[in-house]
Parts: sequence; structure tokens; C-alpha cells
Amino acid sequence: MGLRSPEGPTFFDLLSAQADQLVTGVGLLATMLGASPEERVALRDQLHEVEHAGDEVNHQVVRRLNLSFVTPFDREDLGFLAARLDDCMDLMDEAGDLIVLYGLNEIPDDVSELIAHQVDVLTRCADQTAKAMPGLKSPLDLREYWVEINRLENEGDQAYRRTLTTLFDSGLDPVMIIKLKDVIEVLESCADAFEDFANGIESIAVKES
Amino acid sequence: MGLRSPEGPTFFDLLSAQADQLVTGVGLLATMLGASPEERVALRDQLHEVEHAGDEVNHQVVRRLNLSFVTPFDREDLGFLAARLDDCMDLMDEAGDLIVLYGLNEIPDDVSELIAHQVDVLTRCADQTAKAMPGLKSPLDLREYWVEINRLENEGDQAYRRTLTTLFDSGLDPVMIIKLKDVIEVLESCADAFEDFANGIESIAVKES
Amino acid sequence: MGLRSPEGPTFFDLLSAQADQLVTGVGLLATMLGASPEERVALRDQLHEVEHAGDEVNHQVVRRLNLSFVTPFDREDLGFLAARLDDCMDLMDEAGDLIVLYGLNEIPDDVSELIAHQVDVLTRCADQTAKAMPGLKSPLDLREYWVEINRLENEGDQAYRRTLTTLFDSGLDPVMIIKLKDVIEVLESCADAFEDFANGIESIAVKES
Repeated sequence: MGLRSPEGPTFFDLLSAQADQLVTGVGLLATMLGASPEERVALRDQLHEVEHAGDEVNHQVVRRLNLSFVTPFDREDLGFLAARLDDCMDLMDEAGDLIVLYGLNEIPDDVSELIAHQVDVLTRCADQTAKAMPGLKSPLDLREYWVEINRLENEGDQAYRRTLTTLFDSGLDPVMIIKLKDVIEVLESCADAFEDFANGIESIAVKES
Repeated sequence: MGLRSPEGPTFFDLLSAQADQLVTGVGLLATMLGASPEERVALRDQLHEVEHAGDEVNHQVVRRLNLSFVTPFDREDLGFLAARLDDCMDLMDEAGDLIVLYGLNEIPDDVSELIAHQVDVLTRCADQTAKAMPGLKSPLDLREYWVEINRLENEGDQAYRRTLTTLFDSGLDPVMIIKLKDVIEVLESCADAFEDFANGIESIAVKES
Repeated sequence: MGLRSPEGPTFFDLLSAQADQLVTGVGLLATMLGASPEERVALRDQLHEVEHAGDEVNHQVVRRLNLSFVTPFDREDLGFLAARLDDCMDLMDEAGDLIVLYGLNEIPDDVSELIAHQVDVLTRCADQTAKAMPGLKSPLDLREYWVEINRLENEGDQAYRRTLTTLFDSGLDPVMIIKLKDVIEVLESCADAFEDFANGIESIAVKES
């Protein structure tokens, strides 16, 4: 760790870039749901690329943390924020991956609509996060953001629970139930990761106040 | 972070409050096992309320850590302890929640008794923890406590394994097996979280010695 | 934490010891795959003993971190490395344990060969790690090591995915699928833990450069 102040994008730029990547990622995931099996493979590959790009930005944050003498917030807090956005991306990528890997081509309509609702919640989480990031310099002003993410996480939790009970009552083949349960749980974990991120912002705001 | 020494309950008070909440929580969970489906919903709701109250105390610990200039043990260690008690509560809450969500109303007697044994281990973990907390100022004196929790975790692990093999040999519908396996694993994770907490106390004691 | 410089094995010795234990552990796990049910129990017990010995070394690292005034790398980084090797061992132990606990005696040949491939990847991860540890004092020289572990993790990921899809298409009893899926996922998590360890070394090397 040196006294030099590294060149290049700031922490705020990098977190904004990560949030924008999440908007792209969740868009690909949403498109996958309605796509043909062949299109799904191509979309999954695009999602992988976005995830790799996201990894790169997360590494840039870690490198910058190691090289910066002063940081706008506590070092660990910035690392925490970048890691949570990275989790969101990893989980989106994993959901898309499972859909292809498990060959989930014939999902009954009711389960399918409920999964689409879960992805819709993630879409709104990503949009809100990308919209909030330019204001991160004044975390206290982001109160509406973290309240909204907590509300969305609750909505996502309800959607998750409805999907799960519908799935268990579906009479589907148990192996299909095992596969769909994995996807549904990954989507729920992604909503949780957005909430952890938003709560991290709230903690920073509390310290700044 | 300022030089002020925050008013209000001390770290010891707060961790004691969390431990007491775990005693209440596990009591509700144990009652759920023998309750009717309707009673279960009400008990689940009460368990949720205890979990929310527990979240609030955990947040108080985090806030106090951010505001205190001196802390009785290392800052991270106190945060670790509070977070592990919070994990215990979250996992109890999740177990109760799954029982209602999955509609687990007709569990065969042998599996049911084994699950009751797992919950009984958690009851003793919570009791021991609540009894130990008033002595936390002298962590070296809590040796018997952490040894006992490690013993209980071993007992819990044996119970978990017996439940799981009984479940797999039960001939139950695979979907029912998937549901019960989730509950059994959450109970086992809760015992692990108690052990992590007790090991955290041991680490603090080692540093103090 | 005192100014004394503790006697006994250095951090480098301890991490080397952990890596050597992983070589022993994965050897036992590989032997289990081709063993009779009775032999498996004995091998599982031996694996447990190696895991206990590994716990002890990990605790020695934590104690030494608490007692040392200066450490060769950042305190958290050394703790991170030891914890990841401990994860590798825990996951190997868990895999061996599940094979016995679940009574996995009649695995179809195709699934069995794919599981053997996953274990083979772990064998090479452990070998590479044990070979690299004596050079840890100069982490920048371990570039080939962390590149190779990342390559192995990719190979392991491909093996995991092939095993999983083969399993889902196997027409096996759903309960058998649930059991084998658990084992396969634990093996995959073990490969991930090796990668986390190798990435930890890379991070240290970057800081040192």
C-alpha cells in the first residue's frame, strides 16, 4: 500500500459500473425466460460475458483499495459494497446457467409466471441501484433507495414463497421439482444480496451522520 | 466514530438480551412441533416477531460498535458474537417458517421424534447461552459453557444424521423428503451457529489470558 | 496480543502442514470410491482423524496470529489462507461422510466415473498446493501455481456439470438423485475452496509487488 493516489476511475465510478452491469445482466436473464432453447444458450453466453466483465470491475475495486492511502468511506465498507454487487451478478449468472444446464424447457405456465415475477423484482432492484449510485457520495440522501430495496426484497420473498408452494403442489416429476427449486432459490438469494448491499449503504450513512 | 461513550444498554446487556430472545424463540419452535396447523401459523407469526426484535438488538450492537471509542473486547469479536446469535435466531425463524410454508402436517412418528430431539438440543443450547451471558465480562470463567455447547453440537450432529437416514429409508414421497430435509438441515445449521458463537467466546478468552 | 515472538512452527510451516494433510485426505477419499462398504467406514474414520488434525493446525495459526507482533503478510490474509485450507479439508471430510451416511453403495458406472474425475481434480489441486507451499515466502514466484489451480477449478467445474446432467438423465430413483447431488455439490465446493485459496495467494502477491 503506497501514498500514491491511483489514476483511473474512482470508487464511485466503479460501483456505478457494477450496477449498470447488473441492469444488463438481469435484462438478459429476463429475455432467457421467454426464449427458445437455442436462444437461451446464446443468452447464457452473453450473461457469462457480463459476469466476467463484472469480476474485472470488482477486482479493480480491490486493487484500488490496496493502493489508495485515503478512501471516501471505510476501506472494508467499500470492499463490502463491491462484493455484494459481485454476488448479485454471480447469482444472476448462476440462475441463467442452471436454466440451460438443467434443460428447463417445459416449465408449467403457473410456475413460469411466478419465476418471471421473481426476475421482475430483480429487474427493479438493479434499476433502482443503478439510479442511486451517482448519489453515493452523499449516502444520507439515499434513504429512499434503501427503503425501496427493502420493500422489493419483501416482495421478492413473497414471490419466492408462492413459487415454491406452487411448485410443490404441481404434481411435477420430483427431479423437475429439484431442478426448479434450485433456480428459484438462486433468484431469492439474488434479491437478498441486493438487500445486503442496500443495508451496507445505510450503515455507511449512519456512520457519516 | 466519536469519543463519546454511548448511553443505554452495554454490550453485555445487549448480548444477554439476544440470548434471552433465543430461549423464547426455541420455545415457540418446540411448541410448533406438537401444534395444529392453525396454531402453527400463529406460533410462526410470534416467532417472526421475536426474530424482528432480535434484529433490532443486533442493529443496536452494530450502532454501538460504530459509536464507541473503547469496547470491552475487540470490536470485530463483539460484532462476531452478536452476528452469530443473530444467525441462531434467523435459523430458528427459518425452521418455523418452512414448517408452515411446506405444510408439514403429516410427518411420520419416527421422523417427528427425531426432529423433536434436534429441537431439544437447540433448547439446551439456548438455555446454556442465556445462563452464561451474565458472566461474559470474565470470558475465561465460561470454559464449562463452551465445552458444553461443543458437546451439545455433537449430540445435535448425531441427531441430525439419524433423522436424515431415517428420512431416506422412510419410503415417503420424494417431495416430502425434499421438504423435511430442508427443515432438518436448517436445525443442524442452527446448532452449528451456537457452536460458532461458543468458539468465539473461547477465542476471546484465549486472547484475554 | 503481546510483543513476544511465539516459539514453534512458523506460519509457513503450518500452512505447509495443512496442505500435506489435504494430500492425505484426498487420497483417502479417492480410495473410498473403489472400496467395499465396510472398508469405506474405516476410511471415513481415518479421514475424520485427518480432519481433526487439520483443525488443530488451523487453531495453531489463529493462536499464533493472536500472539505475534509481526506477521510475514497481513494478519487477515494469513488467517484467510489457513481458513480456506480448513474449508478444503472440511469439504473432503463431508464428502467422505456423506458417502457412508447415505449408504451410496450402488452408484451406476457412468455417474461413478464422473465423480472419480471430480475427485481426481481435487487430488491434483492438493498436490499442487502442497508443492507450492514451501515457496510461499516469495508469493510472486507462485504465479504458475495459482494459474494452474484456476485451470483445475475450471476442469472441475466442467466435471461437476457433466456429473450433474448425467445424474438427472439417469432415471435413478429421485431419493438416490438427491443423495448423489449432495455429494457432487460438496466436491464442487471443495474445488472452489482451492480456487479461493489460490486467489488469496495472488492477492498477497499483488500487495507485495
